[in-house]
Amino acid sequence: MNKPIGFIGLGQMGEPMARNLLKAGFNVCVYNRTLARTEGLAREGAQVAKQPAAATVPGGMVITMLANDAAVEKVVLGPNGIAGSLGEGGIHVSMSTISPETARKLAKVHEQNGSMYLAAPVFGRPEAAAAGKLWICVSGPSEGHAIAAPVLQVLGQGVHFFGEDPGAANVVKLAGNFLIASAIEALAEALALGEKNHVDRTALAGFFTQTIFACPIYVNYGRIIAEERYEPPGFKLELGMKDIGLVLNTAQTSQVPMPLASLLRDRFLGSLARGRQDMDWAAIAVAVSETAGLK
Amino acid sequence: MNKPIGFIGLGQMGEPMARNLLKAGFNVCVYNRTLARTEGLAREGAQVAKQPAAATVPGGMVITMLANDAAVEKVVLGPNGIAGSLGEGGIHVSMSTISPETARKLAKVHEQNGSMYLAAPVFGRPEAAAAGKLWICVSGPSEGHAIAAPVLQVLGQGVHFFGEDPGAANVVKLAGNFLIASAIEALAEALALGEKNHVDRTALAGFFTQTIFACPIYVNYGRIIAEERYEPPGFKLELGMKDIGLVLNTAQTSQVPMPLASLLRDRFLGSLARGRQDMDWAAIAVAVSETAGLK
Amino acid sequence: MNKPIGFIGLGQMGEPMARNLLKAGFNVCVYNRTLARTEGLAREGAQVAKQPAAATVPGGMVITMLANDAAVEKVVLGPNGIAGSLGEGGIHVSMSTISPETARKLAKVHEQNGSMYLAAPVFGRPEAAAAGKLWICVSGPSEGHAIAAPVLQVLGQGVHFFGEDPGAANVVKLAGNFLIASAIEALAEALALGEKNHVDRTALAGFFTQTIFACPIYVNYGRIIAEERYEPPGFKLELGMKDIGLVLNTAQTSQVPMPLASLLRDRFLGSLARGRQDMDWAAIAVAVSETAGLK
Amino acid sequence: MNKPIGFIGLGQMGEPMARNLLKAGFNVCVYNRTLARTEGLAREGAQVAKQPAAATVPGGMVITMLANDAAVEKVVLGPNGIAGSLGEGGIHVSMSTISPETARKLAKVHEQNGSMYLAAPVFGRPEAAAAGKLWICVSGPSEGHAIAAPVLQVLGQGVHFFGEDPGAANVVKLAGNFLIASAIEALAEALALGEKNHVDRTALAGFFTQTIFACPIYVNYGRIIAEERYEPPGFKLELGMKDIGLVLNTAQTSQVPMPLASLLRDRFLGSLARGRQDMDWAAIAVAVSETAGLK
Repeated sequence: MNKPIGFIGLGQMGEPMARNLLKAGFNVCVYNRTLARTEGLAREGAQVAKQPAAATVPGGMVITMLANDAAVEKVVLGPNGIAGSLGEGGIHVSMSTISPETARKLAKVHEQNGSMYLAAPVFGRPEAAAAGKLWICVSGPSEGHAIAAPVLQVLGQGVHFFGEDPGAANVVKLAGNFLIASAIEALAEALALGEKNHVDRTALAGFFTQTIFACPIYVNYGRIIAEERYEPPGFKLELGMKDIGLVLNTAQTSQVPMPLASLLRDRFLGSLARGRQDMDWAAIAVAVSETAGLK
Repeated sequence: MNKPIGFIGLGQMGEPMARNLLKAGFNVCVYNRTLARTEGLAREGAQVAKQPAAATVPGGMVITMLANDAAVEKVVLGPNGIAGSLGEGGIHVSMSTISPETARKLAKVHEQNGSMYLAAPVFGRPEAAAAGKLWICVSGPSEGHAIAAPVLQVLGQGVHFFGEDPGAANVVKLAGNFLIASAIEALAEALALGEKNHVDRTALAGFFTQTIFACPIYVNYGRIIAEERYEPPGFKLELGMKDIGLVLNTAQTSQVPMPLASLLRDRFLGSLARGRQDMDWAAIAVAVSETAGLK
Repeated sequence: MNKPIGFIGLGQMGEPMARNLLKAGFNVCVYNRTLARTEGLAREGAQVAKQPAAATVPGGMVITMLANDAAVEKVVLGPNGIAGSLGEGGIHVSMSTISPETARKLAKVHEQNGSMYLAAPVFGRPEAAAAGKLWICVSGPSEGHAIAAPVLQVLGQGVHFFGEDPGAANVVKLAGNFLIASAIEALAEALALGEKNHVDRTALAGFFTQTIFACPIYVNYGRIIAEERYEPPGFKLELGMKDIGLVLNTAQTSQVPMPLASLLRDRFLGSLARGRQDMDWAAIAVAVSETAGLK
Repeated sequence: MNKPIGFIGLGQMGEPMARNLLKAGFNVCVYNRTLARTEGLAREGAQVAKQPAAATVPGGMVITMLANDAAVEKVVLGPNGIAGSLGEGGIHVSMSTISPETARKLAKVHEQNGSMYLAAPVFGRPEAAAAGKLWICVSGPSEGHAIAAPVLQVLGQGVHFFGEDPGAANVVKLAGNFLIASAIEALAEALALGEKNHVDRTALAGFFTQTIFACPIYVNYGRIIAEERYEPPGFKLELGMKDIGLVLNTAQTSQVPMPLASLLRDRFLGSLARGRQDMDWAAIAVAVSETAGLK
C-alpha cells in the first residue's frame, strides 16, 4: 500500500490536482489554511491534516501549490512546518510560482534535514489542472525527479527536466509567464490598431491564431482579448503583477535589462490602480484600449 | 488559352511565387527592374516585359511583389506604369507590405480607370513562398477577390478576406509583423534571463515551442534566437525597421499608442546603428544580450 | 532709410515678433495666409503683402515663422513663393521649428538663386516673444548671420551660433523641445508619486523649482502641472506631437535610439486620442494621473 | 555647554557634514563601522564611539548618514543600536536616502521609546556637503523639527518641511533623485542626437544650461555628459540603481505606473551588467551612445 502523499494548498489549481491524484489511486492527505476547502476532497477519500507537518510522513512526499513565496516559506519553515517532519529521504515537490532565490534557500534547509527539494512549477489554467494536462518543468536532484515522476505524470501531459539547480525550473516558469504576458500586450496593441482602422477584432485574432500563431496561448488569449471578456478570471491580474514582480527581481539580481517586462509592470500597476485586480490578467488590454480612446 | 498574368517584382519572395504560377500552368509575363533576375523564369517559360505596362494586358491581372511603398507607387503611377495599361476590368493584386494609406490611394487611381485594386499581402518566408504555403490576407472589391482566388490558392495555403476597404489587409499584415517582432523581443529577453541564470537557451526555447507556444513563429524564431544564427537572413533587419515604421505611422494616423511597437523601433534603430542591417531581423536579440553584458 | 523686412506668419509667436521689429524702428512688410491677422500690425505701421513674394525686396531680408515644414515649403517654393523673389544677396531667416532635412533642402534652393538661408529657430512662449526675450539658435552662412544679427537681437535676449550647416540650428531646436517634453513627463510622474503618497503637488514642485531645478522650464511647467491648469495653452499639445514626430524622424535618419522620445510620442498620441489636442502640451500629465487612478 | 550630537556614518557625505558641525562649535561624537574613517575627525576634536548606542546621550540628538535601509535599520534596531539608548525626548535625525516604509517603521519604534524620528534626507553632492550647501527636506514631528533646525541650518542652505508623516521627506527625496536621473537620460539622448547630426556636445549642452535649463542639475550633468567624464564619481552608479529601485518600490506600493522610472531602471541595470557600477551615475549615458553606434 502507498504511503500517503501530502498535498498542501487547495486553491483553484491545487484542488483539481489533488483530486487527480486521488482518482489515480494515490493515498492523499490534504492540508489547507482554511479548512472548509478540504471538505470536497475529504468526501472523495482524502485524509485531512490540521497542520502542514501532519500532511507528511517521514521519508514521504509532500506537494505544495501555494499563492506566493511567503506562503511556501511559512509552510516549510513556520510553526508545524514540513521542514521538521519530512525527514530523511523525504521529498518536497514545490509546484508554486516562486522566486529562484526562495527555491534555493528552501532546498538548502531540506538538504540539512536529509530531505530533498524538487522545484516543479506548472503551466496551465484551472481547466488544464483538472484535465491532468499541465506542463511541468522540474529541477533539483535527479534522484528526487525519479521518485516524483510517476506522480507528476498524473498531473501533467509533459514533464521537462532542467538540471540540478533547484532555482532553474522557477526561472523557466518566470520566463514563461513573461512570454505569456508579452503575448497579451502584443495582441492587445495589435487589436487596438485593427479596431481603430475598422478591422474586426475577432476576425483579426482569428486569422493569426489559425495560422502563424496557432498555439494554445494565442488561441486562448486572442479570444479573450478580442471579445474583451475578462471575467471570470482564469488567472487574476493581481497574481500577474506578482509574477512580473518576480521576473523583474530575478532580472535585477542577474543584471538583465528587460524593457518589455518593465512595460508589462507598468501595465499591471496601472490596472491595479484602476481597480482591475480581480479580472483576468489579460485585462491589461483594457488600458491599451483606453489610451487609444476606445473606451 | 489563358491571358497572361503579369508578375512584377522578382525578389526573394516574388521569384518563387511567379515560378509556382508557371508550374500551375498559368501563362506568366514577368517584369523586374534589373533584367538579369528574369532569366531563370524566362528559361522556364515566362515571357519577359521591359516595362511595367508591358507586363499587363487590358482587362487582365497583374501581381506586384515589391520592396516598399515607393516601388509600388512607381510601378503603378510612374512612366510606363500599369495604371495606364490595366484598363477596364483589369485587376492589380498588390502583395507587397505597404501602408494602408498607399493602398487606398492606389485603389482610387485604378477605380478611375475602371480597374480594380486588390490588397493581398502575405505571411511566410522565402521557403514558404517556394512551397506555395503562404498565408494571404485580402481586402478590396469582392468581385476582384473572386477573380483572383484561383491564382491566390496556388500561392498560399489559405486566403482570408477582410472586407472591401483596400487598406484593411495591409493593416492586418502590419499587425502581424508587429506580433512577430514582439515575439522576437519577448523570446530574446526570456532567453537572456535564462542564460544569465544558467538555463540553457536551447532547452528553454525548446520547452516552450513544444508546449504552450507550439506554433510556427515561436518554433522558427525560438530556434534562431537560441542558436544566435542570424545569417543568412530570412527577412532582413532593415526591412523589419521599414515595417515597424509603417506600423507606427499607421498607429499615429489612427491615434493608437503602441509602446511595444515603440520599443521595437528603438531596437531596430540601435541594430542598424551597429551595422546589422543585413542580418535576419531576429538579430535585434543581439542588442538584448549586449545590454545584459553577455557579449 | 531701411529696406523693409518681410515677415511671413503672424500666429501666436509671429505677431508679437513682427511688432517688436516695428517698435525697434524697422520697416516691416507682413504676409499672412488669413489676411485678417495683419490688421493690427497694419494699424501700427506695417505694410501688408498679399503674396509671400510681395513681402520681399530683391536682396532684402524675409523672416518666416510658420506652423510646420509644409507651410514653410509652400511659402518658399509654392506659387508666388519667396524663392523667386528674394534674389542675389537676399536672406531668408527661417525661425519655425522644422526638420533639419527641410532646412537643408531650402538652403540649396536659395543658394541656386544667389540668396542665403539662415536657420534661426527660437525658444520661448508667446509672452517671451512679446517681451523680446526669446533664445535664438542660428546656423547657416556666417555672412548671413552677420547681416541678421541686429534684427535677431531685437527679437531675443541671446543668439547662439551653431555653424554653417543650415540644419544644425533645427537639430538644436528639436533637441530642446525634446528636453522640455522630457522634463514635463518627469515632473508629471514625480508629482503623481507624491500625490499618491500624500505629498502636496504644489509643495513638491515648489521645493524643486526653488532649489536644484530653479530654471525657467521647471519653474513654468512645475507650476502648470502641480496646479493642473492646461488651458489656455501656451503651446498646443498637437504641436508637441508634431515636434516629437520631427525629433523621432531625425533620430531615425541619424540612427539614434531615443526611448524617452518614444515614450513621449506614445503620451502625445494617447492624449490626442482622448481629445486633448488644444490643451497645453503639459497636459500629457493628465494621462500620467489617469493611469495612476487619480482621475 | 552643549550635549554632544551623535553622528553615525562617515562616508563621502557624512564626514564633511560632521566636520561642519564641529566647525560650528557643536560637540560631536562620531561612530563609523570601520573605525579608521573616524581618525581625521577625532584629530579635529570629535569624540569617537565604538558602538552606535555610545554615540548617543539620553534625550539627545543623533544624526545618521548611511548607505541604505539595511544599514539604518541595523544602527537603530541591531545590537547596541540607538533605539535602546536615545531615550525620552531624544531625537534621531535620519538623513540617508531610504524608503518611506522604513522611515515609518523606525518612527514607530522610536515613538514607543519616547524618542522622535525626523526624516531629513538631503540633495547635494560631496562638495555641497563640505560647503554646507545641501538642500534638506524634512518631515516628522514639528517639535523635533524645531529642535533640529539650528543643526540642519549648519548643514544646508535651505530646509523645507513636508509635514508630520515621517515618510514624506523620503518620498520627496526619491522624487528628486528620479527627476535628476530623468534629466541625465534626457541630456544623454539629446546629446547623442546632436553628435550624430554633427552638433558639438559641449556647444549643445552649453546653450541649454545657459538659457532655459540654467539650474544646478543641468549645468552639472550637462557638463559631465557632454565631456563624458564619469570618473571619479560624485554619486556612484550602483547607488543610483539602489535609489531607482526605491522609487519603483514606492511606486508599486502606491500603484503609480512610472514608465520613465522603468526606463531608467533598465539603463542602470544594463550599466551594471557592463561593469560601470563605480562610475558616476551619469554614466548611464554611455549606453545611450553605445546603442547609437557612437562607441
